[in-house]
Amino acid sequence: MLIIYFNIETKIKRKKINNIKDKIQKIFGPIKLSLEGGQTLKGTTIAYSTWGALNTEKSNAILICHALTGDQFVTGKNPITNRNGWWESIVGPNKIFDTNKYFIICSNVLGGCMGTTGPSSINEQENVQYGMKFPIFTIKDMVNLQLALIDSLEIDQLFSVVGGSMGGMQAIEWASSYPERVYSAIPIATSYRHSAQNIAFHEVGRQAIMNDPNWQQGNYYNKEVKPRHGLSVARMIAHITYLSEGAFQEKFGRDMQSKVLSWGFDADFQVESYLRHQGISFVDRFDANSYLYITRAMDYFDLSHSYDGDLSAAFKNTKCKIMIVSFTSDWLFPSSESLAIVKALNKTAADVSFIEVESDKGHDSFLLEVKDFYEILSGFISGAARKK
Amino acid sequence: MLIIYFNIETKIKRKKINNIKDKIQKIFGPIKLSLEGGQTLKGTTIAYSTWGALNTEKSNAILICHALTGDQFVTGKNPITNRNGWWESIVGPNKIFDTNKYFIICSNVLGGCMGTTGPSSINEQENVQYGMKFPIFTIKDMVNLQLALIDSLEIDQLFSVVGGSMGGMQAIEWASSYPERVYSAIPIATSYRHSAQNIAFHEVGRQAIMNDPNWQQGNYYNKEVKPRHGLSVARMIAHITYLSEGAFQEKFGRDMQSKVLSWGFDADFQVESYLRHQGISFVDRFDANSYLYITRAMDYFDLSHSYDGDLSAAFKNTKCKIMIVSFTSDWLFPSSESLAIVKALNKTAADVSFIEVESDKGHDSFLLEVKDFYEILSGFISGAARKK
Repeated sequence: MLIIYFNIETKIKRKKINNIKDKIQKIFGPIKLSLEGGQTLKGTTIAYSTWGALNTEKSNAILICHALTGDQFVTGKNPITNRNGWWESIVGPNKIFDTNKYFIICSNVLGGCMGTTGPSSINEQENVQYGMKFPIFTIKDMVNLQLALIDSLEIDQLFSVVGGSMGGMQAIEWASSYPERVYSAIPIATSYRHSAQNIAFHEVGRQAIMNDPNWQQGNYYNKEVKPRHGLSVARMIAHITYLSEGAFQEKFGRDMQSKVLSWGFDADFQVESYLRHQGISFVDRFDANSYLYITRAMDYFDLSHSYDGDLSAAFKNTKCKIMIVSFTSDWLFPSSESLAIVKALNKTAADVSFIEVESDKGHDSFLLEVKDFYEILSGFISGAARKK
Repeated sequence: MLIIYFNIETKIKRKKINNIKDKIQKIFGPIKLSLEGGQTLKGTTIAYSTWGALNTEKSNAILICHALTGDQFVTGKNPITNRNGWWESIVGPNKIFDTNKYFIICSNVLGGCMGTTGPSSINEQENVQYGMKFPIFTIKDMVNLQLALIDSLEIDQLFSVVGGSMGGMQAIEWASSYPERVYSAIPIATSYRHSAQNIAFHEVGRQAIMNDPNWQQGNYYNKEVKPRHGLSVARMIAHITYLSEGAFQEKFGRDMQSKVLSWGFDADFQVESYLRHQGISFVDRFDANSYLYITRAMDYFDLSHSYDGDLSAAFKNTKCKIMIVSFTSDWLFPSSESLAIVKALNKTAADVSFIEVESDKGHDSFLLEVKDFYEILSGFISGAARKK
C-alpha cells in the first residue's frame, strides 16, 4: 500500500512578505501609546488605507474595523496577496459604503502584521523584533490607537464605525468608550465578551503554534525556519469555526478528490484539501506571533468587566444609533451573544436595532454576499444619513 | 512583563504504558483478518473484557462498542489509567446493563492501542512495530474482528449491540451487515456517515500529529521522543467538539485561574487549563498512530456508499429491534444525523424507535449521567428482553 504523507512544507509557495511598508498606503505615527496592561508602547505607528474624500465638515468618515486575520485592504487589490479586498463588494463608488459620498478609513489593528506596530516590528530599544517581548494589548488598546489616527485626521465624530467579529468588538468598544466620537455603529456577528468555547478554540490554536519547535519562543524572525506548521494548524482549526455545519456539508459533503479512496492519509476528501489550502495560504500572509497576541486580545475582551458584569453600565453614555446584526447559522458568535448587547443597550434606552439575518453560511456570512444583510446595511446607512 | 510559556513537555507525568498485554483480561487470536481495503492482516489479536456469565442458551450476550478514544474497560477499574470504567454507572450488578443477567462483552477496536492489533503492534514479518505500514481499516473491519470474537464464543445471536459515537457506527454496521446475529441494537449519538465538518475536525487533528517533528513518519516507538505535542493538540481540538457551547459556558464561563489577568499567555482562564489537562493526560494513554488510523476509519464510514447512496438498501435485511438515541445539544452528531438513519430504517418497515434526549451536555452526553437517557436505555433493554 502506498501511503502518501502530507507535508505542508513541501507544498508551500515560499512567497516572502517583504517590504510590507513599501506597499502600505498610509502610516500615522510614531506616537506613545498607553496600554490597558499598564505599559507604554513607544514609537507606535498605525498603517491605514482610505477611500473617498473627507468633506469640509469632516462629517462623512466611516471607520471600518477588520477581524482577527483581516487587514486594512478593504477594497481594491490587496498589495500583499494580490487578491480583492475583503469587503470589495460593498465598499466602493456607488456601493453600500459609497466612496463617492463617504470617506472610508480602515487601519491595521495594533499588534497586526500589515504595517501597524506589532510583535514583528523592530523594538528600537533592542534593535531587534519584539517577538514575545511585545506587551499584551486589548481591544480597547486597538481602539485607542484608532482614536489617535482619527484625531490626527481632525475628525471630531465618525459618521459610523462598523465591523464584523473582532471588528464588531471594536465597534461596540467605540460606542461605549468614546460616545461623543461616533454618530452610528454597526457591530456585526460579534459579542461583548469572548465565550468559553471561543477561548477554547483560540487556546488550541495558540498551543499548535507554541508547540511548533520552529516557533522558538517567538524568536523566529531572523531564523531560517518559522512556525509554519503550527500557524497552519491554528488557521485550519479557526477556519472550521467560521463556517456552519450546513455550509461544510453543502460545499463539500463527502465529495472526494478522485473517484477512489486512497486508503491512506492523503486528502481523499475535498474538505481536507480545502482546509490544507486554507492553512498553507494563511502562513504566507500572517505572522504567528501576531496571531497569538490578537487572539489573546479577543479572549481578554469583556466589555462588562470594568462594570462588575453590568454591561448596561458600559453603555451609560452611549448616544449613537446602533444596528446590531447576527446570522442564524453563526455558531461562533451566535445571535444570543448579540441579543445580550441589545438587552444591555435597551436598559439605557439607547437608539438600538437588532437584526438576525437568515443565512446558512455561518460566521463568515459577514464577509459574503448575503442579500438581506446587504439590504439592511444599505438601509441603515442611508437612514442614518437622512436623520443626521 | 513576565511571560510564562506553557510547555506541555515539562508538565507531563511520564507514565509509560508498558506491559499492556499483562493487564488485558482476555485475548482472542491470532487470526487472519481480511480487510475492506483488500489486504489481509495476519496474526490479528483482539483484546476484550467480559462481565457476568453467558447463559446456557447463549442468548444473553451484549456487545458494547467503544468510541474513538475509548477502550474495553467499560466498568471496574481501568488497569491502565486506574480510573473507573467509562460506563461504570450503567454496567454492573443491578445496573442498566445488569451483569447479573447479561454477559457483557467489550473489545478494544481494531487499530487500537489497548491490546488489539494496531499500528503499535509488532509486524512479525519485520519484527518491528507497524507504524504507518499498518493497513488502513474501516468500521466494518472493526465489526468483522468483533464477529470473529463472537464466533469464538459460540454466540449465534447477540442480545444487543450498543455504542455511542464511533461505537454507534459499529452498532449500525452490525445491524446492516450481520442482521441474523443481532436481536437488538442501540446506536447512540452517531451517524451513518461522517459529515464534512467532522472530517474537517479529524483532519486538523491528524495534521497536528503529522506536523509534529517527533512523529517521525510514524516511526517513534523505539525513539526517545514521541509526538506528544501533536497528539495533545489533536485531543484538545476534539475535546471542544465533545461539549456543547452551553456546557462550556456553564462549566467555565470566563472564570479565571486567579483573580488577576496574567497579561501573558499562561492559562488565565479555567477553560484553558482544563483543555491543556485534557491534552496532557490523553497522551499518556493513547497512541498517536492509532489516533490517525481510527479517525480515518470514521471518516471513511458511509454505510450508504456500497448502495449508491441509498441508505435504506443497507438495511434491507435488518431484522433487529433498533433504538436510536440522540442528544439535543450534540452538535458533532446532531439529531438530524440520527433522523437520517431512522428514515432509512422506516423505509424498510424496520422495528425502529428514535428518541432525542434533552441534554445541555453536548456529544459527551452519552458518557454522562443523563436521567432521561438512562430511563430510555433501561426501558428498551427490559422491553426487548420481555419480547424475546
